[in-house]
Amino acid sequence: MHIVITGAAGFLGQRLVNQLLDRGELNGVAIRRLTLVDQTEPPAIDREGVEVVSLARDISAPGALDPVLEARPDVIYHLAAVVSSAAEADLDLGMRVNFDATRALLEGCRAHGLAATRLVMASSVAAYGGEMPAVLDDMTALHPQNSYGAQKAMSELLVNDYSRRGLVDGLVLRLPTIVIRPGRPNAAASSFASSILREPLNGEEAVCPVPTDQELFVMSPGRVVDALIHGAEVPGEALGPFRAFMLPGITVSVAEMLEALREVAGGEALARVRHEPDARIEAIVGSWPARFTNERARRLGFQSDKDFHEIVEAFLDERA
Amino acid sequence: MHIVITGAAGFLGQRLVNQLLDRGELNGVAIRRLTLVDQTEPPAIDREGVEVVSLARDISAPGALDPVLEARPDVIYHLAAVVSSAAEADLDLGMRVNFDATRALLEGCRAHGLAATRLVMASSVAAYGGEMPAVLDDMTALHPQNSYGAQKAMSELLVNDYSRRGLVDGLVLRLPTIVIRPGRPNAAASSFASSILREPLNGEEAVCPVPTDQELFVMSPGRVVDALIHGAEVPGEALGPFRAFMLPGITVSVAEMLEALREVAGGEALARVRHEPDARIEAIVGSWPARFTNERARRLGFQSDKDFHEIVEAFLDERA
Repeated sequence: MHIVITGAAGFLGQRLVNQLLDRGELNGVAIRRLTLVDQTEPPAIDREGVEVVSLARDISAPGALDPVLEARPDVIYHLAAVVSSAAEADLDLGMRVNFDATRALLEGCRAHGLAATRLVMASSVAAYGGEMPAVLDDMTALHPQNSYGAQKAMSELLVNDYSRRGLVDGLVLRLPTIVIRPGRPNAAASSFASSILREPLNGEEAVCPVPTDQELFVMSPGRVVDALIHGAEVPGEALGPFRAFMLPGITVSVAEMLEALREVAGGEALARVRHEPDARIEAIVGSWPARFTNERARRLGFQSDKDFHEIVEAFLDERA
Repeated sequence: MHIVITGAAGFLGQRLVNQLLDRGELNGVAIRRLTLVDQTEPPAIDREGVEVVSLARDISAPGALDPVLEARPDVIYHLAAVVSSAAEADLDLGMRVNFDATRALLEGCRAHGLAATRLVMASSVAAYGGEMPAVLDDMTALHPQNSYGAQKAMSELLVNDYSRRGLVDGLVLRLPTIVIRPGRPNAAASSFASSILREPLNGEEAVCPVPTDQELFVMSPGRVVDALIHGAEVPGEALGPFRAFMLPGITVSVAEMLEALREVAGGEALARVRHEPDARIEAIVGSWPARFTNERARRLGFQSDKDFHEIVEAFLDERA
């Protein structure tokens, strides 16, 4: 089993690499080779019995992945992306990395005859937008209101069409907002969703810029990686006529998130969250859908977190 | 008023050109200039007071439309496309003409600062597919099951994103099956839908390859051209957060189509239709959605045919 991961140096990529190495197998076949690709060379890994190669590549450059695809990998995880704020700030950069690189990867699979290679791509809840029903389902149209979401939605259509034509065995998973991310706050509008838990749990202050009745559709990093792994194992025949769908996050209000914080870490931790409304962030976050039925994902065996408590506990366990 | 039309030599392009010249104005402004673009040079037109330029251009070639866009047209109709059967037979050709040329056109508008130029693009009912509800609405997801539909759906996302970013004032109209097309039967799976009326009305035989309870979602050529013209006139502010939607066709069964033929031209004409089931065509046509609510299009003032009778009468009037 040879697995390629683009965006392997990122937060999700690194977690996926570690979990794959810990499992040692995918689909019942021992993992013998991992090819890790990112803009900057992913950290070297020394694991007995597994050949791990780390490559620094601009995957939007023509033919950048040719040598990798020539080796006929069994599974490709395509996680490399320009995030939403950067894609909004620079249309050309977003088109090049989020769309053209996906197209180049699909063309590479076609050129190398990788019809049986499972390609698992990450898309996002940001592909939804505009006027939406109260509860979204697998037939809700994608009307993205940001360039990142548009580029992801276009890539989904391409992965589906190449899969339908038998040129690759693709699958796109739309990720909910990932909570609790490790690290520091960043410029993303969703940054607060991790910050209001992570910082107080670390004894630091955090700012909540949205009303506490704001709902979010969230998934823990652990469940997202579980979904990526399941995405490589679910049989192509089961995927139906469109190979992209939303993963089963859970719907949680900011009030419920803060209540979970209080239950786990007490009133002292809760008091570290300062409420400072920010109309700009409120507008962006308020436009994200927070309720989905996720019928396809559940039928295919993708798992959500049990509740928000479990998400907080998992973060504490990992930190310990 | 300067109007550019790609695909101007085609059936719809030619009808649109004639109707624009007959009206003499668009949005209350006199039409002074028409630039007609197609692979082969569109027929020359001599009309007093209007400068009509016909150009043979491969619009998928880089910069092919630069001189045209430099003139800062007020309206661009983007009708050029590789049809579904050709796009299915040749993925590269379809991607190049149906998607890359649209992208190049949008980039051209961006480069020339055509923020106020209304771009009206034709998409298709073929962008829908897969598991669909009994009645589709404006929020039904596009899960195309053919490359033509995928390329159109990707182009829709791009037109919407460039419009959202204020780089052009775009709008995409998804066309129903156009009935009654003039001319001869062709290789399209939908060819029969015009053929079973046109040929008997012309005293010729026709073959019906699908069951008579098969429903279709149809629009007459006249109404489609009306919609293209209305698409240039409807204000951008009214279009809402996604600039692509289905036009209001009418739902009609093959039995109802044949009944209209009998009413208009008698049992003799009806007897010219031979029923020869074709499983391949049945499968393709049976996968097309035939029932839509079309709320957005109707709210925006797009008109459907009154009934199928009117469609047949219009064909006879034009032939006369």
